[in-house]
Amino acid sequence: MQLPAKTDRYLIAPDPAAPRLTRAVTGTDQTGAAVEISVVEERPLTIFLNGQEIVTAMTIGDYPQYLAVGFLRNQGMLADGEDITGISYDEELETVVVRTASRTTYEEKMRKKTRTSGCAVGTVFGDMIEGLAGVTLPQAELRTSWLYALSKEINTTPSLYLEAGAIHGTVLCKQDRPLVYMEDVGRHNAVDKIAGWMVLEGESAGDKILYTTGRLTSEMVIKTAMMGIPVLASRSGFTAWGVEIAREVGLTLIGRLRGQRFVCLAGEERLVRDADPADADEDSPKSRRKGAHA
Amino acid sequence: MQLPAKTDRYLIAPDPAAPRLTRAVTGTDQTGAAVEISVVEERPLTIFLNGQEIVTAMTIGDYPQYLAVGFLRNQGMLADGEDITGISYDEELETVVVRTASRTTYEEKMRKKTRTSGCAVGTVFGDMIEGLAGVTLPQAELRTSWLYALSKEINTTPSLYLEAGAIHGTVLCKQDRPLVYMEDVGRHNAVDKIAGWMVLEGESAGDKILYTTGRLTSEMVIKTAMMGIPVLASRSGFTAWGVEIAREVGLTLIGRLRGQRFVCLAGEERLVRDADPADADEDSPKSRRKGAHA
Repeated sequence: MQLPAKTDRYLIAPDPAAPRLTRAVTGTDQTGAAVEISVVEERPLTIFLNGQEIVTAMTIGDYPQYLAVGFLRNQGMLADGEDITGISYDEELETVVVRTASRTTYEEKMRKKTRTSGCAVGTVFGDMIEGLAGVTLPQAELRTSWLYALSKEINTTPSLYLEAGAIHGTVLCKQDRPLVYMEDVGRHNAVDKIAGWMVLEGESAGDKILYTTGRLTSEMVIKTAMMGIPVLASRSGFTAWGVEIAREVGLTLIGRLRGQRFVCLAGEERLVRDADPADADEDSPKSRRKGAHA
Repeated sequence: MQLPAKTDRYLIAPDPAAPRLTRAVTGTDQTGAAVEISVVEERPLTIFLNGQEIVTAMTIGDYPQYLAVGFLRNQGMLADGEDITGISYDEELETVVVRTASRTTYEEKMRKKTRTSGCAVGTVFGDMIEGLAGVTLPQAELRTSWLYALSKEINTTPSLYLEAGAIHGTVLCKQDRPLVYMEDVGRHNAVDKIAGWMVLEGESAGDKILYTTGRLTSEMVIKTAMMGIPVLASRSGFTAWGVEIAREVGLTLIGRLRGQRFVCLAGEERLVRDADPADADEDSPKSRRKGAHA
């Protein structure tokens, strides 16, 4: 079992020991012996905006308020600078109501649904692309030493990721420091929780890096750009359209980030190759699983 | 590079060399050197049902007809035994229209949306759970020798899975033989393509096993059960609600299937432990990546 990495640099880090997030379940193994394992909880959360029911999301249930606000924001149902007057989470009813000072134009948004590769719901697809037209991402230097440091630290942070493929994580970072590490069974929930945190904490985006465990699809690129974050990095791969959109919107897109290696397919100009590749984490099988337990 | 596994047992297997599915893109690597890599294409496909636009899905675009029919079926918009009178795919307009003899009640379905952990859109959440109430899955023996054989064969089948995390695969199997291996950037697209294939080919479900690379969420369990398949297996992990639903509906749920090991958390009674664990594939890092190229 790995020694836990220091997580005191994080503002929010996963809490694998949180009782509410996992449950012990018994079954049998290949020999027929009884076995007890820990499995991640998955709960429905119904999100309301000013009395209008919007969606029910399945989530591990750790940050319902951030998820609700971030979801609505990323779907374009909460404007930038929207005056949020209240957020009511009812654990028993599994609902969260987000209230705003002014009415919002969500009715239009609900009309055409897009299921994208990671699966978004609610946003008019054309709107998403149009929404990008107004986005300008700041120049913001990206040092490779930061990428290596982030990769190393994130890959050794204990997570709910108890076995391969169970959880998707996304981490909001600043330079070489991971700040907010969100996980969820739904990849887009993790990103939405970060967006919600940024809205409610009034955190800036232009000086941040978004690191994700998942693939760099068009959906992920669009969300990152609309959140105002100029750099998106993953140990995983790309899709062609994700690359196209990143190039159009001027986002720096880093994929296949493992050990000292990576590929940059967009926004090259931000990169400053200041790192000694020897500083990078070894691309070992152990580091491939983020703090996975045996 | 691994020798390609025989894929002639498959009815449908991934075709990593298919030109339309990937694109060569140039960028830079960690040293600043120019690099050209192959990335997966991702295209919007707008699905219509009898003239009603339903959704736009992002897909790799290999089986638009199967995807459309399977999506509609799994959303409950096409009934079992529905008379499909035509399917028109327009590659240029990126649309597919599915026509049926009778009108279907999709309007109700569109009203309440659920985004689940893998992300579904369109089905009334309550409807999904209700729909399960009518499901009876057949007894159907499940031999561990079949699980080991399937795992071994699937893990060595070349796929578009060029690097970790890029693609999600799901395979329809019969006993120890994988039949239809679908991949897509969206995990649920792969399942829907299989469902569409089964509908259009008139293939039975009760004698099948569904193997997936992804986690066994409530969404995956529900889809599998509603497709009438009594066994769902993955090398990945579980969620608590996925386990609960599997137990309620009488589905056999096998997770953490790696090498000779697995955990069964539901539907134990179907299992026949006939295998010699030595027949199982070694749980090596190489076998963890399904035919991944260097």
